[in-house]
Amino acid sequence: MKIAVLGTGMVGRALAGRLSDLGHNVVIGTRDVATTVARTESDAMGTPPYPHWQKEHPAVRLVTLPEAGAHGEVVLNATNGQNALAALEAVGAEHLAGKVLLDLALPLDLSQGFPPTLTVANTDSLGEQTQRAFPDARVVKSLNSVFCEVMVDPSRVPGQHSIFVAGNDPAAKKTVEELLSEFGWPAGSVIDLGDITGARGAEMYARLYFTLHKVLGTFDFNIAVVRAG
Amino acid sequence: MKIAVLGTGMVGRALAGRLSDLGHNVVIGTRDVATTVARTESDAMGTPPYPHWQKEHPAVRLVTLPEAGAHGEVVLNATNGQNALAALEAVGAEHLAGKVLLDLALPLDLSQGFPPTLTVANTDSLGEQTQRAFPDARVVKSLNSVFCEVMVDPSRVPGQHSIFVAGNDPAAKKTVEELLSEFGWPAGSVIDLGDITGARGAEMYARLYFTLHKVLGTFDFNIAVVRAG
Repeated sequence: MKIAVLGTGMVGRALAGRLSDLGHNVVIGTRDVATTVARTESDAMGTPPYPHWQKEHPAVRLVTLPEAGAHGEVVLNATNGQNALAALEAVGAEHLAGKVLLDLALPLDLSQGFPPTLTVANTDSLGEQTQRAFPDARVVKSLNSVFCEVMVDPSRVPGQHSIFVAGNDPAAKKTVEELLSEFGWPAGSVIDLGDITGARGAEMYARLYFTLHKVLGTFDFNIAVVRAG
Repeated sequence: MKIAVLGTGMVGRALAGRLSDLGHNVVIGTRDVATTVARTESDAMGTPPYPHWQKEHPAVRLVTLPEAGAHGEVVLNATNGQNALAALEAVGAEHLAGKVLLDLALPLDLSQGFPPTLTVANTDSLGEQTQRAFPDARVVKSLNSVFCEVMVDPSRVPGQHSIFVAGNDPAAKKTVEELLSEFGWPAGSVIDLGDITGARGAEMYARLYFTLHKVLGTFDFNIAVVRAG
């Protein structure tokens, strides 16, 4: 499948690398290709500069955001949540219309330290904002509840644990569930939270998620929803 | 142990009944005893009037909020979250000083329908507000992440699943963990989220919790935190 990943950070790289390894035709979209390929320093999180990663993943092409939008049959938004809507504007609504837009961004505000607060929560969510801003895109919120390495390899956490999907378009959710299955998420691990307003719960869980990271001392964890019957 | 439960709703009743069955000396505190015992109608949620429940639990005494505060060595706040701080004011700071205050209230706003939004979230929490308003109380946030019947009988959900505690006072958390153990929560199911700011994650999870209730069609569920190693 032709897939566009937006965002050159650790999340975008983890997804693009894994999707490419799975045999998909993958591009990564960035605002300014020349700047991204010229980077020589690790970022504030210690993530090595993009060219280091690119060398190990020659099949993944780095392109501009509109080129990424034109390429992708499915578009994954793995940008920093605070820039997510601006990045999608740069991709162009015409490149998103009718397409599955997998939104895995979290609207984190780290300005007050860790654990982060959210720039939108409680009465709205980034998933809902994205669907409203791009009404012709088929937005599905998913994967935002686990660390990027767990997203693409759920076996890092033992046993069966849960991953959420939310969106207005059942066929789009089906496409996302197929990608989840390729990553290693069995059908029984997927919980459909309903329409895109379900993104609110998935995003607000972020506070508990980051608190759990802090007290557990690892990102290799997840929650399993357990029910009677 | 002498325990005071604040709130005569379904949550307060579930806790008071179970604690009484376990052999504790339990009172329920209410703003106006005469009004509560005069009720003859079920409430908007279908909960039968208090006197019906009282008949089945004669060992539990209904008292005023200050009397409840005077009685309890441990105080459980099971009021409607929007009234929680006002109820604690009525109890009186002098009755809370030095005591373990188990805050299991959720600051729900149901005015816009279901799932509810929160009246405080993201940059603050009811647990933190409670600790600030009553600095001499030893506030522990716990149990707010599951349905009241699961709080007092976790075996309603199969296997081991997780319950959170957050608070500034380690000895107070220990007391709460002993009560959790009496309810049936094994030590391995308890996750300490650190100081009272951990309440924020536990409370913000409510949006996902109520969305899960909606899609699962049951309150007999919980999350298990699963980690590598």
